[in-house]
Amino acid sequence: MARPGPDAELTSAQLHSSLSDPLLDVMNFLNEVTSRHPEAISFGPGRPYDGFFEVDRIGDYLTAYTRYLETDLGRTPEEVRTALFQYGRTNGQINDLVARTLANDEDIHVDPAHVVVTVGCQEAMLLVLRALVTGPDDVVLVTDPGYVGITGAARLLDAETVPVPEDEAGLDPDALLAAVREVRARGKQPRAVYVIPDFANPSGTSMPVDRRRRLLELAAEEDLLLLEDNPYGFFSRTGEHRPTLKSLDTRHRVVHFGSFAKTCFPGARVGYVIADQPVVTASGARTVLADELSKIKSMVTVNTPALAQAVIGGMLVSYDCRLREADKDLVDFYRGNMEALLAALDRHLPQDRWPVRWNVPDGGFFLSLTVPFDADDAFLRESAGDHGVIWTPMRYFHLGSGGERQIRLSASYLTPHEIDEGVRRLAGHVIERLTQGDR
Amino acid sequence: MARPGPDAELTSAQLHSSLSDPLLDVMNFLNEVTSRHPEAISFGPGRPYDGFFEVDRIGDYLTAYTRYLETDLGRTPEEVRTALFQYGRTNGQINDLVARTLANDEDIHVDPAHVVVTVGCQEAMLLVLRALVTGPDDVVLVTDPGYVGITGAARLLDAETVPVPEDEAGLDPDALLAAVREVRARGKQPRAVYVIPDFANPSGTSMPVDRRRRLLELAAEEDLLLLEDNPYGFFSRTGEHRPTLKSLDTRHRVVHFGSFAKTCFPGARVGYVIADQPVVTASGARTVLADELSKIKSMVTVNTPALAQAVIGGMLVSYDCRLREADKDLVDFYRGNMEALLAALDRHLPQDRWPVRWNVPDGGFFLSLTVPFDADDAFLRESAGDHGVIWTPMRYFHLGSGGERQIRLSASYLTPHEIDEGVRRLAGHVIERLTQGDR
Repeated sequence: MARPGPDAELTSAQLHSSLSDPLLDVMNFLNEVTSRHPEAISFGPGRPYDGFFEVDRIGDYLTAYTRYLETDLGRTPEEVRTALFQYGRTNGQINDLVARTLANDEDIHVDPAHVVVTVGCQEAMLLVLRALVTGPDDVVLVTDPGYVGITGAARLLDAETVPVPEDEAGLDPDALLAAVREVRARGKQPRAVYVIPDFANPSGTSMPVDRRRRLLELAAEEDLLLLEDNPYGFFSRTGEHRPTLKSLDTRHRVVHFGSFAKTCFPGARVGYVIADQPVVTASGARTVLADELSKIKSMVTVNTPALAQAVIGGMLVSYDCRLREADKDLVDFYRGNMEALLAALDRHLPQDRWPVRWNVPDGGFFLSLTVPFDADDAFLRESAGDHGVIWTPMRYFHLGSGGERQIRLSASYLTPHEIDEGVRRLAGHVIERLTQGDR
Repeated sequence: MARPGPDAELTSAQLHSSLSDPLLDVMNFLNEVTSRHPEAISFGPGRPYDGFFEVDRIGDYLTAYTRYLETDLGRTPEEVRTALFQYGRTNGQINDLVARTLANDEDIHVDPAHVVVTVGCQEAMLLVLRALVTGPDDVVLVTDPGYVGITGAARLLDAETVPVPEDEAGLDPDALLAAVREVRARGKQPRAVYVIPDFANPSGTSMPVDRRRRLLELAAEEDLLLLEDNPYGFFSRTGEHRPTLKSLDTRHRVVHFGSFAKTCFPGARVGYVIADQPVVTASGARTVLADELSKIKSMVTVNTPALAQAVIGGMLVSYDCRLREADKDLVDFYRGNMEALLAALDRHLPQDRWPVRWNVPDGGFFLSLTVPFDADDAFLRESAGDHGVIWTPMRYFHLGSGGERQIRLSASYLTPHEIDEGVRRLAGHVIERLTQGDR
């Protein structure tokens, strides 16, 4: 090897392996694809709708929070100043408000000390994986297809992820059991299972309640933790709300991730994790997993910005810790968009005429469209460049093979007119491809 | 081993090794010690002074930022709303303003695309270590004593840290060279050296300019990256400002960490890293380290809260990207406090009467007091409980042995009266211990 020159230059081999993993490009792609094709209608990112946001409200929420600190908590003006401007507690400042909101909205009853407020749900996932993965023998199971944020966080920690197939009713407990046994047969430890039970990203599937109960039993039988992520739970299309795993959990088997990105707004980057699992330290002291996550957080972000917590705290106070009611218009908006997407597919790509199918999600942002050819990067480039429509290859969300012929469609931030026009364009491309196949 | 019961319970052995490392408790201790002893005068945390903060200014800064977006950048009201409320670019939204401020205040001239805006400097350190540490053979060198944030981040990534002794003029290049050779002799790779050249935490030392130049030469000769952290650079006691390593760096040898926690306020948690190192990927594509850090960041926090960036951006705009001038009162405050600390030590613990000594820092928050006995946890507990004064054992900041007889004093957020009274109490305890020794 040649002696390195005096100017610093790094090669891929000198950087962590995660940086050569295509997985880490996917989320950047999802966030930035819209800006690369400004003219196209994009079903790509699961971006929240921001039409209800009002810049002037930020000041109102800050005022609501400072008034809450002064009036409800009896803080002095100096203490209020400190709460907004200084470093705060590592595990969060608005934990009480988060716990009250969870009780009202989700029937999840949790000690505020068992909540860690995080910089979005992504930080929470990293903290939990770092706590649970002790070395190369610890394995994280992830629904397949699954959310790239959890597999990406695992890559950063050199943690092995094992896919567990979903069916049309979400994570299949039998498939999970088989995966757990396969992992143990290899001499490895399945530590946790990541799952989005409601309106999953990317597939749009939801787990029936009996499956949820079976999953909890299995977690106890097999000594697993369930990592439940619930970003879309509010956004039911049908009006039905199934209980979260955490609300059914009597055995501390569920670590529950939540976020205010979709129910309040993403620009605050405030999420949280409920981690009430008892921990016994080497010295015999008893603590809970939230305290351990807090120690890790002190070396990741120190604490979640006080300013961001104050604005979200102010929103929670303003709505009496009942976001579900406050978000009624937003829930209606997303319901309307999912209905519009389903209607547009029926209109432009009828299943009785074309060999395609799609699932009918009970809610959330995402739907999965299956076509009889590979919906790959090349087809996506043609869609964007020639047809003015963007979507995400489901392939991106599978850990191994799978999803080659599936398209993830998100209609979360478009107007019904854009949805119809976008589906018309996509249908044009799909039909062009199908009829080319007839030549 | 007994079959685990159905209720989840975790033991230390089932959690990552970093959680059993006492190091991770230190930062929580530093943040929370004050609240545990509300009556004591605390020289413990390096907490910024918040007397100049005004809650009402947050709205002004937000307005300044939105006006900048509209007027200077020509954004529409919808784009302004999106900039505040939505997810943003992973590497940051205020990079231009940060780069202009660095040019004005630090004579550091950097392409905004080579800056990553982070959730405080802590996230920046984690991102850089994750990028550079590819496996167990990669070693990070850290000044000894050193900042716990860097060693803690290394622990999370199972990265080996090797101490490099400081002397009264900071990091010693000869000691660094010896450490580098020792690491290589063990078959390992020294990848980077963490250093705070100005007013170091915890020791208060600063590196003379000729040492900085020698360090840069050594980095080129030995193919090292220098991780320069500059949280306190503004706060010169003497009025002298030495050039940062980055401003002297002509060979991309310096990764520069900065933070607005001390120059603006901590509650925004906005920091940044300059990472202009060229990178050649496996496919031969050319990029820079900042782009690679951005990929990692997408799996840690996705992006730095838009809201926090907007408030800091508004401060930068308000002060014409010249924080050094804007912080004049704050600089004077910290200068006055360091002078008060030095005067109080002279007054209550004169070196011609007692066998103690301390350094005379050129600026910053910290000073190191040496006593002729172990300044350990037991002595600290007595200080806090019996004498009403808190400080930090320097021992905490050493990776191996060292610092047993040293005390870190921070006077960053106290009043001159509190400083004098606190030193009087500490002197009382030290003298009690010294005279007990005579029995």
